[in-house]
Parts: sequence; C-alpha cells; structure tokens
Amino acid sequence: MRYFEDIEVGTVEEFGDYHVTEEEILEFAEQYDPQPFHTDEDAANESAFGELVASGWHTAAISMRMLVDNHLLEQAGMGGRGADELRWQQPVTPGDTLSLRTEVLDKHRSESDPRRGYVDNAVEVLNQDGDVVLSYTVTGMIERRNPDE
Amino acid sequence: MRYFEDIEVGTVEEFGDYHVTEEEILEFAEQYDPQPFHTDEDAANESAFGELVASGWHTAAISMRMLVDNHLLEQAGMGGRGADELRWQQPVTPGDTLSLRTEVLDKHRSESDPRRGYVDNAVEVLNQDGDVVLSYTVTGMIERRNPDE
Repeated sequence: MRYFEDIEVGTVEEFGDYHVTEEEILEFAEQYDPQPFHTDEDAANESAFGELVASGWHTAAISMRMLVDNHLLEQAGMGGRGADELRWQQPVTPGDTLSLRTEVLDKHRSESDPRRGYVDNAVEVLNQDGDVVLSYTVTGMIERRNPDE
Repeated sequence: MRYFEDIEVGTVEEFGDYHVTEEEILEFAEQYDPQPFHTDEDAANESAFGELVASGWHTAAISMRMLVDNHLLEQAGMGGRGADELRWQQPVTPGDTLSLRTEVLDKHRSESDPRRGYVDNAVEVLNQDGDVVLSYTVTGMIERRNPDE
C-alpha cells in the first residue's frame, strides 16, 4: 500500500488503454447526458460536432476508471476533494482508444487532520493520435503512514 | 429554442429531483470508479467514509442529467468547453435525493467564431437536507441567433 509519504512530486506516468465503443457512448448519454449529439447519430451529424461524440462527463468517468485500474487501488486513498481546470479539448468519438498521462504536481498535509494529506495530480486524457481530449487537475486525499511525525 | 442572446446574466434557477439508489451507485462505480468505498458496503463501512458513497464523477454525471432535463434541451447548445472549481463537499449516499441550483455568472461572444458564444454557470448540487454536496462552474457553448450583429 502506498501512503502520502510515498508520493513523490514530479512523478510522471503514462498508462491505460480504453477502447470507446458507440454502444457505451449511447448508454452513458441516455442515462446521464441525453443531448441529441450524444444519443442520436443522425442528429449528431447535423450538429456543430458533425458526428456522434461522447459526453464530456463520460470521458471524465473513463479517465477515473483508468486511474483506479492503474494505481489508485494500491494507494491508501480517502476519496477526492475536487478538480480544477477541466477542459474538453477535443471530441471523443466511437472507436477512439484513450490513455492517460499523469503528473504529481504538489502534495501537502492536512492542517486539520494529521491522518491525511492532499495530493494534486495533473491528468491528461489522450486519444490514439496523441491529441489531448480532456485535461484537468484533481486533488485526492490519502492516508499518512505516520500521522504522529 | 433559446440562443446566446436570450441568456441573462444573474438568472438563478432551482430544479431537479434525482433519487440516488444503492443499485445505481454500485452500477456506476463498478464500471467507472471501482474503489472499495464505492462498490462494497462492508469495505465502505471500514473506510474513512464509514458507509457506501457515490463516486464523485457519478454525482457530476447526475448533475448533468438534471441540467439536460431541465433546460439544456431548449437551448441551442454546442457542448461544454470546461469546468472549474469542482468540489465534492459532502458524500452522496444511497437514498439521497439531489437537486440543483444554477446561476448564470457571465457570458461572452467567441472571438474566433461569430456563430457561438460562451456562458459560465455556477452549479450547486444539494441533497434533501439542503447541504451542498458538489459545486462547480461550467462553461457551455451556445449558438448565437444573429451571428452578423
């Protein structure tokens, strides 16, 4: 298990391989973002996008799945506090294969609770062409191994 | 249909009624955020949360659904550009009923494309006790009715 003390600022990681199908784009959008350019191919063709595109919140959810699969389960995580500067830079379309690039930007102890610390990560979601489709920073809470030090 | 010109800065709206079930929390988390405190009641009881809680990205997706149901379909929307200051302020747990409060913070024309404008909205997701569980600002793109003016 990795604790707050084990996180090193500046660490860069690249990982993940998530294939996005039309079926999954439609399923997410019908439940959470039923705008026509996310749920209906004909309407999407007529829209500003010109084709069916994934909900931006779907892309964010996919990035979370890649984070969890790749290292969050090995961390003594206590949930997320927030995210900033979330930018949907390019559309995600059926058939795209996404991956992640993360960088540990900063970490600091909680002032109110000695058992936890905060870690700021920059996250970029890339498609198979290397384009950044989504970027954001996220602050996670993580247990300290030695709260008394 | 509401266009960029129809949006009034300062407009506040409260709406929505979204009942969050344990089944939906588990379903979203198993697909997109399989951390034990989102997918396993026993593990969640032992976690810092002390109970099963929804993924933060799930709460964001639910807020999108309420936005779409309540007014996005009446707008000439062209998708979202980004979100800022996303803060998961309180956990969302099975049985919660969520609603939204939105405020139009600002709007401005695109400098590069006369057909579109940008609208900044503050979004707060509240639970049945009136606690803000998630807050963020989001910038949406919207068509201008009169691109030539």
